[in-house]
Amino acid sequence: MSDPVVQGLIEALRALPGVGQKSAQRMAFHLLQHNRAGAIKLAQALLQSVDEVGHCERCHTFSRDRICSICLDPTRDARVLCVVETPADLAALERTGSYRGMYFVLAGALSPLDGVGVRDIGFAPLLARAMDGVVDEVVLATNFTAEGEITAHVLSEQLKSRGLKVTRLARGVPVGSELEYVDLGTIAHALMDRR
Amino acid sequence: MSDPVVQGLIEALRALPGVGQKSAQRMAFHLLQHNRAGAIKLAQALLQSVDEVGHCERCHTFSRDRICSICLDPTRDARVLCVVETPADLAALERTGSYRGMYFVLAGALSPLDGVGVRDIGFAPLLARAMDGVVDEVVLATNFTAEGEITAHVLSEQLKSRGLKVTRLARGVPVGSELEYVDLGTIAHALMDRR
Repeated sequence: MSDPVVQGLIEALRALPGVGQKSAQRMAFHLLQHNRAGAIKLAQALLQSVDEVGHCERCHTFSRDRICSICLDPTRDARVLCVVETPADLAALERTGSYRGMYFVLAGALSPLDGVGVRDIGFAPLLARAMDGVVDEVVLATNFTAEGEITAHVLSEQLKSRGLKVTRLARGVPVGSELEYVDLGTIAHALMDRR
Repeated sequence: MSDPVVQGLIEALRALPGVGQKSAQRMAFHLLQHNRAGAIKLAQALLQSVDEVGHCERCHTFSRDRICSICLDPTRDARVLCVVETPADLAALERTGSYRGMYFVLAGALSPLDGVGVRDIGFAPLLARAMDGVVDEVVLATNFTAEGEITAHVLSEQLKSRGLKVTRLARGVPVGSELEYVDLGTIAHALMDRR
């Protein structure tokens, strides 16, 4: 399409993660041809989110209030602080319904190869948060990827040196999986951590 | 994320074709965490496109003007009319630089199983367009899928019965491909249409 406005839309859609030129073109055509109402709704949702959604001052998750509802909840256990990489990870933990402590959301994980260091992901605010005098255990729930493991390792050192108890989510065989198809590293960890 | 505004954004992102719950969530988090400027730009591009981009009255492609630049171009051959399924297909043909006739863009292809019939994809306007007294050849460039072939077949019958010359894009072996990996139907067609 040679129309510069349609081109601009295609270009703008590429801001979405995982969307290349072809997908962006397909999306633009689909919205203009079949779902203009959806396009307007999406535009409004984007503007409203950018306008209203900030970060909780205490745990850094997405929040429209200065302090999010989890941080304000007096029934939660303020002695346990769970560190995750993203608000999506926080949401996943919440959905289990089996954690009643507090959270701290990093801005992603350490990734030296991409130039993402301790400053970029908010280590200092986390250390300050963990040293509030109430927290006595920090649960590291960063991803079990290379980046997440490095992040957990570096964080663990720093937190332990400040006298805090540090734990990590258990590694093991995923529920519902067949051993035959589980990777060797996972099985090895599950064996080591058997109980 | 329990925040209803973020949830609304995730919901709105699902209007995009091929985007499910997981991708929408990833997109929302990415935009809010890393690319708020991109989110605003996308919102503006969506609103501008919906507001300004309509369809050319003659060929039905996307256009901000009542008649698009191709239909207005006096150097193009008005005797040849090429029928495509979407503006994206028109763009692909234009990029080849080897077609100098006019276009007509259907609203997709016939798909009886999905309840898409001749009325839904704009057959009547096409027949009216093709019978303008100037067009003497209609090139059917619908896709070489089941739906596109049915569409071409039905169109061909209708146009021929009105005394127009009807052609179809040649089927054959794609340029740059190795015979070994080309499907049998394509090879059979390439054999039949050998020249």
